[in-house]
Amino acid sequence: MTDIEQIQQAVLQIMVIVKDQLRTNLNFNHVEKKSSRTDLVTERDKQIEKQIIAFLSDRFPKAYFVSEEGYGDCLTDLSGLVFFVDPIDGTLNFVKSHDQFASMIGVYHDGQPIFGAIADIMQDQIFYGGPELGAYVNQQPLAPLINQELSAGLITVSSRLLMEQLNNYRSIINHSSGLRIFGSAGIIFTRLFQNKEVVYISNLKPWDLAAGLAIGKAMGLQAINIDGAPINMLKSQTVIIGTKCATIETKDLLS
Amino acid sequence: MTDIEQIQQAVLQIMVIVKDQLRTNLNFNHVEKKSSRTDLVTERDKQIEKQIIAFLSDRFPKAYFVSEEGYGDCLTDLSGLVFFVDPIDGTLNFVKSHDQFASMIGVYHDGQPIFGAIADIMQDQIFYGGPELGAYVNQQPLAPLINQELSAGLITVSSRLLMEQLNNYRSIINHSSGLRIFGSAGIIFTRLFQNKEVVYISNLKPWDLAAGLAIGKAMGLQAINIDGAPINMLKSQTVIIGTKCATIETKDLLS
Repeated sequence: MTDIEQIQQAVLQIMVIVKDQLRTNLNFNHVEKKSSRTDLVTERDKQIEKQIIAFLSDRFPKAYFVSEEGYGDCLTDLSGLVFFVDPIDGTLNFVKSHDQFASMIGVYHDGQPIFGAIADIMQDQIFYGGPELGAYVNQQPLAPLINQELSAGLITVSSRLLMEQLNNYRSIINHSSGLRIFGSAGIIFTRLFQNKEVVYISNLKPWDLAAGLAIGKAMGLQAINIDGAPINMLKSQTVIIGTKCATIETKDLLS
Repeated sequence: MTDIEQIQQAVLQIMVIVKDQLRTNLNFNHVEKKSSRTDLVTERDKQIEKQIIAFLSDRFPKAYFVSEEGYGDCLTDLSGLVFFVDPIDGTLNFVKSHDQFASMIGVYHDGQPIFGAIADIMQDQIFYGGPELGAYVNQQPLAPLINQELSAGLITVSSRLLMEQLNNYRSIINHSSGLRIFGSAGIIFTRLFQNKEVVYISNLKPWDLAAGLAIGKAMGLQAINIDGAPINMLKSQTVIIGTKCATIETKDLLS
């Protein structure tokens, strides 16, 4: 296995480059639509994804890449070293509000998370870490996760789940302190790491999940597939992510 | 009528004091519950409200005060000079996530908005202005409001309205680019001023509305009562606030 320090160094290096590029030049042009009016991809998404994959594949030539915009590999298993890349998570925020978006890289070895990095671009913060490394923001250790109950904290249910199945989530929202919707999985992960929220429920793709789960594993954050199956890093799934207490309460309220 | 420059100077002076106090000492203790588990008031809310009212009533002895925590006057009309004070808007965020909260002061004369200031405490920004003054953030003029359509932008519907009447708002949300929920009227006003969102729908109290409407009037932001009546600054009401285009589209979709 490639040395974890080497992985951390390379991922943080490209993350800083990408963050500074995005902050210096907030060029929101060249928007393409993907599946619908609200699923956007920009030239910046594609350019940054290519840049990240080129940088990392140069340093880790045997690694595989799973990525949002299609410049990665098509994997059927997770053997070896795999980088999950989301160049701009929250593209709609990137385009419409110019804040609340993130770049994410998650690193797995034989299916296990070893490192993750999430850059909150407009707050100029990089959250990173992994099970063997601990969890940090901009080189400072993150404060420990407080195992808050559902009633003690704010939660996020994605707007898609809310619009389609509000009644399924109503009692969870009512048991919590309140509902917040930011429109970026990466941003919500950073809020969970900082004890700003206690539960996040959304249908997420592997590149939405990988970095956050790797950092979260270092902090004791829980993550379960809503249907009870193990989390599968090769497909989309609806997940409950949060403090141990609040995740269990949420699962109980759903059953 | 008291000179508008004098009002601006005094409001901004106390706003900077309050913002710096809150940023220096994020003391979240002494939380009391108001009407429910999720309606909180802290000692800080009360202390700041008293401080603002003392500061302003000293300088404007004939003025009236309408305020959230009960240290103001009980008004039945809006004659003369009236200050609307919300010491911490988004108290739940203040307590739970330590971000996304605001302090707000709106100034009206004979029922007409003349000045407003909204401090986004954790972003260290004060938005302010009025019909005769223009609109500013931290001494810089705000960029003009872009008259975006509903489909072009993000919107906020308060979580209370969503939970109680999702079906009333479903088509508005579907026509927009997406739903965001931040949990603070003041923060959403600052997002509207910056073209980050195009519509905000919520049931708001006078102190939630006053500052934002005064600044918004300088920018061409529209605000209508959802039932068609004029906005009444002596009571709560459900309002649609946004760009001209998006506010009309929203109203049409509701009827």
